Amino acid sequence: MYIHQVAAYLPAHIVTNEHFTRLNGLSHDWIIERTGIRERRKAAVGENTNTMAIEATQRALAAAPEFIHGLDLIVGATYTPYDTIFTVAHAVQHALDVADIPVVSISSACSSLLNAIEIVEGYFAMGKASRAVVVVSEHNTAYNNEEDTIAGHLWGDGAATLLISKERLAETDLRMVDLITGGAATVGKANTAVTLKPVERGLVMPHGRDVFTHACQHMARVTSQLLERNQLGVEDVTYLIPHQANLRITRNVLESLGLPTERAVSNIQDLGNTGCAGAAIALADTREQLTPGNKVVITVFGGGYSYGAMLLER
Amino acid sequence: MYIHQVAAYLPAHIVTNEHFTRLNGLSHDWIIERTGIRERRKAAVGENTNTMAIEATQRALAAAPEFIHGLDLIVGATYTPYDTIFTVAHAVQHALDVADIPVVSISSACSSLLNAIEIVEGYFAMGKASRAVVVVSEHNTAYNNEEDTIAGHLWGDGAATLLISKERLAETDLRMVDLITGGAATVGKANTAVTLKPVERGLVMPHGRDVFTHACQHMARVTSQLLERNQLGVEDVTYLIPHQANLRITRNVLESLGLPTERAVSNIQDLGNTGCAGAAIALADTREQLTPGNKVVITVFGGGYSYGAMLLER
Repeated sequence: MYIHQVAAYLPAHIVTNEHFTRLNGLSHDWIIERTGIRERRKAAVGENTNTMAIEATQRALAAAPEFIHGLDLIVGATYTPYDTIFTVAHAVQHALDVADIPVVSISSACSSLLNAIEIVEGYFAMGKASRAVVVVSEHNTAYNNEEDTIAGHLWGDGAATLLISKERLAETDLRMVDLITGGAATVGKANTAVTLKPVERGLVMPHGRDVFTHACQHMARVTSQLLERNQLGVEDVTYLIPHQANLRITRNVLESLGLPTERAVSNIQDLGNTGCAGAAIALADTREQLTPGNKVVITVFGGGYSYGAMLLER
Repeated sequence: MYIHQVAAYLPAHIVTNEHFTRLNGLSHDWIIERTGIRERRKAAVGENTNTMAIEATQRALAAAPEFIHGLDLIVGATYTPYDTIFTVAHAVQHALDVADIPVVSISSACSSLLNAIEIVEGYFAMGKASRAVVVVSEHNTAYNNEEDTIAGHLWGDGAATLLISKERLAETDLRMVDLITGGAATVGKANTAVTLKPVERGLVMPHGRDVFTHACQHMARVTSQLLERNQLGVEDVTYLIPHQANLRITRNVLESLGLPTERAVSNIQDLGNTGCAGAAIALADTREQLTPGNKVVITVFGGGYSYGAMLLER
């Protein structure tokens, strides 16, 4: 299978660290040192997970207008749903007006991007689909309490859409070489470390250290496993795109793998943690720099916990 | 693929129609006439989507304790999440303590059961799994406003777990012969008719008539399509298990298909609309009555909209 196109949507409004200094007394330098985050985006009134997903999808389709002919699957992903019934995937189906195709939304928190792509891989393997939209969208600010001094400053909003086809459609398509996902709800404080209980309305991270430790370990481990089973070394990786949770996590993963800083793609500085959209947004920004033979590894870690790694080749 | 075991969990507390007579002035007869619902279950304090899913899964595994060896996939489904990060599937992984297997939760509202099984079908087709837990769990009362005179009396809580394997494990296993799912977000008032926006905390159904019409049409149509492509007639269907939304919808679907009342399985009378768990709970209750050669069709319709049909053979 091939990633034919990737596009992102980011809300226009920028929230700087100074906002959290005024609100909670957290200094710009303190936030930078602990997270790498300089600013993040916030959805406007009237924007939500569904509208951002539609925007990202329309951008992807504007760059590849012929893709919609034969579109036969939509998989949405979010842990910050606007509507769990008219889900993010249904909102995209509604906007695209493509009837009678499988449509489903998922969550494995910040690692959903790879679960969504693996579900597409399954539909392709069954022969039940051959051209899919995967859309990842997070409206963290709808559930985040920005007065939370522990994690309120971490989150940003954004969305991205991948157009994925069974057959190669263009020379610039990225071939999906291999993909691993795994739930890790059995380790550490997976059940309490980071949670979003909608009835209590809260996105909270009471055990950030546990998340940090397991994110570092799991992303490094699954990336090594992915490379090993494809007989590749880290030197073969043109770009590593880790889940955009925290710049210190990214640096730790790079160090464990023995990769230099410049090989990692990071948007956390400008976007904060955009959940399952973060790595896809980074892929959208990276794609055009790739040349034939280049390899990209996307590795993710989500609350709950979950992890994954995917190998792409231009 | 084969359904090896099915088990349900229902909270003990029963809410009768008299509760809604006292609260909203809706009479028992009026509710019965319009919905068929006599009573429904309500989760206790401390129970939620995740705890009910774990209970149902433990019951399924108690009936088939060897199934856990080789378990390699968990798919959860709910539109009434307790936690969108430590999702219902992650809670089950945590409880079962099975590490490093794909774990994901989904929603296509009341039709998620069939989307979840189709995702399992995909993992089996890829060779990435061969033994799966599918767990459907709804905590409608956490999101429902019972003072809503339009739809507050419809909803109930409950969960069910299916143990699904690629190969037949026992003579009593149900073979999954065929499965169709589809999003129908493009028809009618799909985007507004029934919604659950967690931030607004509401499960509401402002356009019940639109839901009714499309539920009847889609469930009848997809069931006909499923039977036709398997060269079966309605006379070959031992039991039809429709989504348990409303007894009038069930009767309408039966009439469209030309099936007598006794061929439909209904639990709506005792459980109300238990969302994506309803048809699975009905399957748990029906399974032991089946004899070799019997065929069961499960057909679903969900808000947003979505539909599906699955053919099982004993």
